[in-house]
Amino acid sequence: MPQQIIYLDHAAATPMDPRVRAAMAPFETELFFNPSSPYAPAVSVRNAYEQARADLAHAIGGKPADIIITAGATESINLAFTCLDNPDGSASDAHVITTAIEHASVLASAKAHDHTLVGVTPTGRVLPAEIETAIKPTTRLVSVGLANNELGTIQPIRTIAEIVRAERLRRLQAGDATPLFLHCDASQGAGQTNINISSLGVDMLTCNAGKIYGPKQVGLLWAQPDVVLHALVHGGGQERNLRSGTENVAGAVGFARALTLAVEDRKFEAERLQVLRDGLQRYLTREFPQAVVSGHKKHRLPGHLHISFPGIDAERIVFLLEEKNVLVGTGAACAANKDTRSHVLEAIGMDPQLADGSLRLTLGHLSTRENTVVAAQLISAAIHSEYERMAR
Amino acid sequence: MPQQIIYLDHAAATPMDPRVRAAMAPFETELFFNPSSPYAPAVSVRNAYEQARADLAHAIGGKPADIIITAGATESINLAFTCLDNPDGSASDAHVITTAIEHASVLASAKAHDHTLVGVTPTGRVLPAEIETAIKPTTRLVSVGLANNELGTIQPIRTIAEIVRAERLRRLQAGDATPLFLHCDASQGAGQTNINISSLGVDMLTCNAGKIYGPKQVGLLWAQPDVVLHALVHGGGQERNLRSGTENVAGAVGFARALTLAVEDRKFEAERLQVLRDGLQRYLTREFPQAVVSGHKKHRLPGHLHISFPGIDAERIVFLLEEKNVLVGTGAACAANKDTRSHVLEAIGMDPQLADGSLRLTLGHLSTRENTVVAAQLISAAIHSEYERMAR
Repeated sequence: MPQQIIYLDHAAATPMDPRVRAAMAPFETELFFNPSSPYAPAVSVRNAYEQARADLAHAIGGKPADIIITAGATESINLAFTCLDNPDGSASDAHVITTAIEHASVLASAKAHDHTLVGVTPTGRVLPAEIETAIKPTTRLVSVGLANNELGTIQPIRTIAEIVRAERLRRLQAGDATPLFLHCDASQGAGQTNINISSLGVDMLTCNAGKIYGPKQVGLLWAQPDVVLHALVHGGGQERNLRSGTENVAGAVGFARALTLAVEDRKFEAERLQVLRDGLQRYLTREFPQAVVSGHKKHRLPGHLHISFPGIDAERIVFLLEEKNVLVGTGAACAANKDTRSHVLEAIGMDPQLADGSLRLTLGHLSTRENTVVAAQLISAAIHSEYERMAR
Repeated sequence: MPQQIIYLDHAAATPMDPRVRAAMAPFETELFFNPSSPYAPAVSVRNAYEQARADLAHAIGGKPADIIITAGATESINLAFTCLDNPDGSASDAHVITTAIEHASVLASAKAHDHTLVGVTPTGRVLPAEIETAIKPTTRLVSVGLANNELGTIQPIRTIAEIVRAERLRRLQAGDATPLFLHCDASQGAGQTNINISSLGVDMLTCNAGKIYGPKQVGLLWAQPDVVLHALVHGGGQERNLRSGTENVAGAVGFARALTLAVEDRKFEAERLQVLRDGLQRYLTREFPQAVVSGHKKHRLPGHLHISFPGIDAERIVFLLEEKNVLVGTGAACAANKDTRSHVLEAIGMDPQLADGSLRLTLGHLSTRENTVVAAQLISAAIHSEYERMAR
């Protein structure tokens, strides 16, 4: 990446960490063997793959046997939702609860079933009581993202987990065998907040390598043993028959390294990013007192700043800043969001015109004190010039 | 890979071509941007991704718009079979015809539907007339692999395509709107035989990067525009909403380079491998006149040699050879094949005991005249010593 670029869109994509790349390299060249081949060098590749699985499990506090390595978070999420399917693959009458601000893959998966979308507060927080109220006798899954990818708001997963457990206990005592599980999409939280499954109290967890300086299109679903999942693709029987296809050993090894680094460096990096983010936020809100910072004040990813400038067309700012080599986002980057307003900002009740003036500034490994200060100045200059242009 | 290893299992996995690795590298580091992000550097990443799609299409003679980039051949095959699903995702009464010697992913996908498995000749060839006979009014898909991954036998896809077209014409003239398509899994043929969609006459084609010196867990499904497919995973709407998930740009770029090289170098490489393979076959059949070479004499992948030694336990040979740094396979390498006899050898009517003495020797980029000669000697020595041990 050219030195002069200032990247403030870490929530959309991250560059591969050189340590991750180095870990992957041998498995693309000299250790390229099919892990299912019988000879010793292939067995050592199989062992490296299983070691990667063990490292992934260790990073989230789970057991290796409960990890399914997938081709990314979208697949993991779709796989998690198969716990709602009948064993014969037919649609069930199962009910699922999720939130109005989830990623497109969660919303699409939920909409294939009887579902309730609970709303969020203006800061983007889910109220656990609303989850509790939404539980029906047929509810079998609650799916809540750990941190929202636009606002950075971190959800009270632990409290939601306690509600799910209480309902499970109630059903058990009532002789009701309907299962109920909590899935958490942690794609956007790893490396900045705690993703330990015991701390969170979840039954399923999705993680994504591409958001934590690992390879793209690699992910995992952790599911505790009681969860019955059904394969989305069928074939060679890899990953306990839940995810057929020759294993992406290099990808898994890289993901394991990336997740391990994310968890190890988390506290240090979170503190570092929060200082930078708070500085950026202070600078911009001083320059533009009318600007609206969204997301929860306390429960927010430390590298995340969602800020809206009344009257501004944020897309113009993106292009003005791009000319200055500052790269910022306006919201989630995926095909579904092209030319549409953010469903997240709608859910927090933001005025559509204000929503159009929103920037999502997300800091990460590429952020330094120096380039964040420069970014603050260049963003300010761009918005000032845009207000001036509009006043002419 | 250590210099001294002689690799004869190219059908199981291939090392990444350094030219492929070089093509991928920039998209892991400086050009890591999410292709759906709005700023210019991300747009250039999007353009590189679409150029990769165009290159993939060009390599098989198709249009870019008809290519879906997937996480490998297993996913491509499962996606191809969604043409049998009703639009609401419910199971249909559609009938599918495939062969008894297909890859596990094809067989698993077929078995989810009303299906006919046609047999093969002792050389592993499908008889087009048997496909024709198997067609029912409800038949909507015929799926035949281009080349068998154990025997190397190449199928008469063109002739099968003509049968499919004739039935399509007949239905059209009879006012019957039931669609009928031909899918071909070309995972095992690219780089050694023609995979041009017009030459083959197919409606859908699956290719796999991991078998042609590209990255693992990257594949494509080409489908002509009349084929209606249904997404296996739902989410951000990437790949025309058929394959959601942040695009694996590095993987796609690497795959495009690998497939382009495979097609460009095909004739030269096929001739080179055939000379080596024929030499290896001559050497082994001279040393062991009792050995049985399987696969079609003429219609066989040039780098493929399936050879069975009566009375021998091939797994012992694998381990004896591994000590001499010669890596050979006994059959397809995937989880489904652990500790089971080959369904392919069963389908060609091979005696189970002879099947147990089978080696699959597959040549490729790592094969040279020198190391193939050494391999022939070491394989002979291993089999001689095994016969001697058994005679003691």
